[in-house]
Amino acid sequence: MKNYTSINEIENINSWIEEAKEIKENPLKNKDLGKNKTLGLLFFNSSLRTRLSTQKAALNLGMDPIVMNVSGDAWGIEFGDGTVMNGNTAEHIKEAAAVVSQYCDIIAVRAFPSLTDKEKDESEQVLNSFKQFASVPIVNMESATGHPLQGLTDAITISEYSTKKKPKVVLSWAPHVKALPHAVGNSFVQAMQKMDVEFVIANPEGYDLNPEITKDTPIYHNQEEAFKDADFVYTKNWSSYETYGKILEVDENWTITKDKIGNAKFMHCLPVRRNVVVEDAVLDSDNSIVIQQANNRTFAAQLVLKKILEEL
Amino acid sequence: MKNYTSINEIENINSWIEEAKEIKENPLKNKDLGKNKTLGLLFFNSSLRTRLSTQKAALNLGMDPIVMNVSGDAWGIEFGDGTVMNGNTAEHIKEAAAVVSQYCDIIAVRAFPSLTDKEKDESEQVLNSFKQFASVPIVNMESATGHPLQGLTDAITISEYSTKKKPKVVLSWAPHVKALPHAVGNSFVQAMQKMDVEFVIANPEGYDLNPEITKDTPIYHNQEEAFKDADFVYTKNWSSYETYGKILEVDENWTITKDKIGNAKFMHCLPVRRNVVVEDAVLDSDNSIVIQQANNRTFAAQLVLKKILEEL
Amino acid sequence: MKNYTSINEIENINSWIEEAKEIKENPLKNKDLGKNKTLGLLFFNSSLRTRLSTQKAALNLGMDPIVMNVSGDAWGIEFGDGTVMNGNTAEHIKEAAAVVSQYCDIIAVRAFPSLTDKEKDESEQVLNSFKQFASVPIVNMESATGHPLQGLTDAITISEYSTKKKPKVVLSWAPHVKALPHAVGNSFVQAMQKMDVEFVIANPEGYDLNPEITKDTPIYHNQEEAFKDADFVYTKNWSSYETYGKILEVDENWTITKDKIGNAKFMHCLPVRRNVVVEDAVLDSDNSIVIQQANNRTFAAQLVLKKILEEL
Repeated sequence: MKNYTSINEIENINSWIEEAKEIKENPLKNKDLGKNKTLGLLFFNSSLRTRLSTQKAALNLGMDPIVMNVSGDAWGIEFGDGTVMNGNTAEHIKEAAAVVSQYCDIIAVRAFPSLTDKEKDESEQVLNSFKQFASVPIVNMESATGHPLQGLTDAITISEYSTKKKPKVVLSWAPHVKALPHAVGNSFVQAMQKMDVEFVIANPEGYDLNPEITKDTPIYHNQEEAFKDADFVYTKNWSSYETYGKILEVDENWTITKDKIGNAKFMHCLPVRRNVVVEDAVLDSDNSIVIQQANNRTFAAQLVLKKILEEL
Repeated sequence: MKNYTSINEIENINSWIEEAKEIKENPLKNKDLGKNKTLGLLFFNSSLRTRLSTQKAALNLGMDPIVMNVSGDAWGIEFGDGTVMNGNTAEHIKEAAAVVSQYCDIIAVRAFPSLTDKEKDESEQVLNSFKQFASVPIVNMESATGHPLQGLTDAITISEYSTKKKPKVVLSWAPHVKALPHAVGNSFVQAMQKMDVEFVIANPEGYDLNPEITKDTPIYHNQEEAFKDADFVYTKNWSSYETYGKILEVDENWTITKDKIGNAKFMHCLPVRRNVVVEDAVLDSDNSIVIQQANNRTFAAQLVLKKILEEL
Repeated sequence: MKNYTSINEIENINSWIEEAKEIKENPLKNKDLGKNKTLGLLFFNSSLRTRLSTQKAALNLGMDPIVMNVSGDAWGIEFGDGTVMNGNTAEHIKEAAAVVSQYCDIIAVRAFPSLTDKEKDESEQVLNSFKQFASVPIVNMESATGHPLQGLTDAITISEYSTKKKPKVVLSWAPHVKALPHAVGNSFVQAMQKMDVEFVIANPEGYDLNPEITKDTPIYHNQEEAFKDADFVYTKNWSSYETYGKILEVDENWTITKDKIGNAKFMHCLPVRRNVVVEDAVLDSDNSIVIQQANNRTFAAQLVLKKILEEL
């Protein structure tokens, strides 16, 4: 594999899940694969799970991780083509990506969307610029429109916890105080569309995700209806896609409660705002598998790095 | 050993000191003990010695250190129970601690007190929340009320430099321009109470440390009297404990001078404000062992990590 | 070698260049040399290339790099002698340098000039204080007046790309929107003065570099004249040295264009502001060797670290 920037780069999700489970059983088996190889982790935004689990994955493969907070540690990066750089940016991505490629064998990048300029966000300028100008493989640690390491993690977790041949999985929007990106929702949708599950989405009107991603996945604007017989309730807030980046008023209470989910397993990518997105009673119950889910971040990242290292 | 969060977790300080000295003589002896193990260093506050020496200790044991500035790199963490998280905090410690436990084999945490809310500081909310919600051992890299890696360092250093069977050790308050925590003072008191030394404290009136910690250790409000025949003068500023977190007016000059300490060895945990806490003439003389003391931070941390690794 | 703080510490630049090329051909040959040795990288300022390439160099030698942003991660450092430290600085360099020396086998430091106080900048207070108070070797990762890892990199690159026995090398000033240091220019001048090249400098009037550094190197105030028959055009902005730290008005357009450089190779230390310092047409042409130049940062750093490690 060259790059891992989208769930769509996974050809056969079931074989990936099986390989991830093998890695999880014996995480140090490929400790020599990444020897003398460096992974550059470039953060344009905050990170806890991604930062730690991707480093852990690299270490399990014998790689040397090098972490950099691009904004704080280095220079403002320019992405525009032909820009006269007499403003706040000091280095063009053409140079930055090409240069970092010479110090790192793989580059992992996190860069959130603006949520103010839909077209620009959808162009995935940062991620695609790295793909274009770097000479080494690029891993997406959450971009403007996708979080494929999370989506792969989620697929692994659902496979692990499923007790049915074809479980029902619901992706439910939930409230939040800040305008959040669509990346996690998008990648989860794409992962579920590749799995053998009954998959539906629940969100208030005005909060439908990008129809080019949801495609023919059923979307309910009634949470209760969507949750009926659910085996997994995956929860995530996102800002409006139609009224791009805005928080719309919602009449009903979409906070996830124990009553609502019944016996379904509760999933969330974390961080989660307790008693806003989901009540304590859910997170503190056995229904919640958010911690186990987060654990799989290591093995999803390790699988991706392994696949890339094998073709270096 | 499970956690190392307080000097009180040291059962026999003399045997610990001996083991630390053995480590110092041959720091790479246990290079295989921490192989394929990660130490997460989580900083809520600034650090130089702790940051570097704890990493060095981990490396000496073959561990992989992963450093994170929690505030800058990740999300605001909520510690309140049952909080409706619609404010500035984005992740609850319940999730954060449990998740990080899955990427790190040991978690080391630094979190200073508010110095405005005595009860909250004494509850050691951050440290105790990590102990409660993490599933791996916790090491205290300075909490609201204690700095046990420093206290252990100090015990080792006094043992190394003592030329008497029972030296006289004075902990002396000294002036400072900012309100500082009691953590270093507290842990030093607890360490000295466990050692075979004549131990007294000197501080201005109003600056007595927590009596539940000082217990029956003699407290002098007259520096000269306390310093009589001292073999070691350990200096540290702290804000008032009674008038919690405040800087009180002090009549005499408590700055440490060469005249005051005579032949005693001068110790300080560093960083130290020259010519405020102590005059240059002391720090630049052979009486000062602050640099050698700081060197022992590595071996104190290495001893603690070794003891934890041996029981993982 | 003890320290590497200036190009002037290179006795025979040709033998250094040859050794760097050998390292480049087989970068992992000395992987055991730095085993169990730590390199402390202390940044008082931003960095991308230096941060990554110096870590990469250390890893190639088997060292453990420990990175610290001094300002953000640790305490404000005081450099004044005899200062009463009742202001914003919390730790004196005397302690900081001596302490860090005990955790790191080599210390690398980056500290930019003020550009407001010429005398203070030329005293190289930060770098020289580390040299004075540290007990381990110091590597200059760009100081107030020099960037010798860059200068060595540049010498290696010119040697690699030269097709003549004695190529003509021009260092050309170019415009910029911010007042920049003289460090890169100075070290490049010093490196070229040691090599067998025809070396001239081109800059507008008022922008002559320190004459104690340029010595008898020809300085042209006419860019076109200087560029005649050039094989290499090395471009860099710097603020005025005479009118210290100021941006002066310049009549002509000194931006580097394809027309101006003809067949010469284009070099720049990066980051570079496109279409201000140099037009896109140059950077995107085969004449530009800025990326290859940046790659040599690793091998310059590795050579320096190797020479220091060999004498530890």
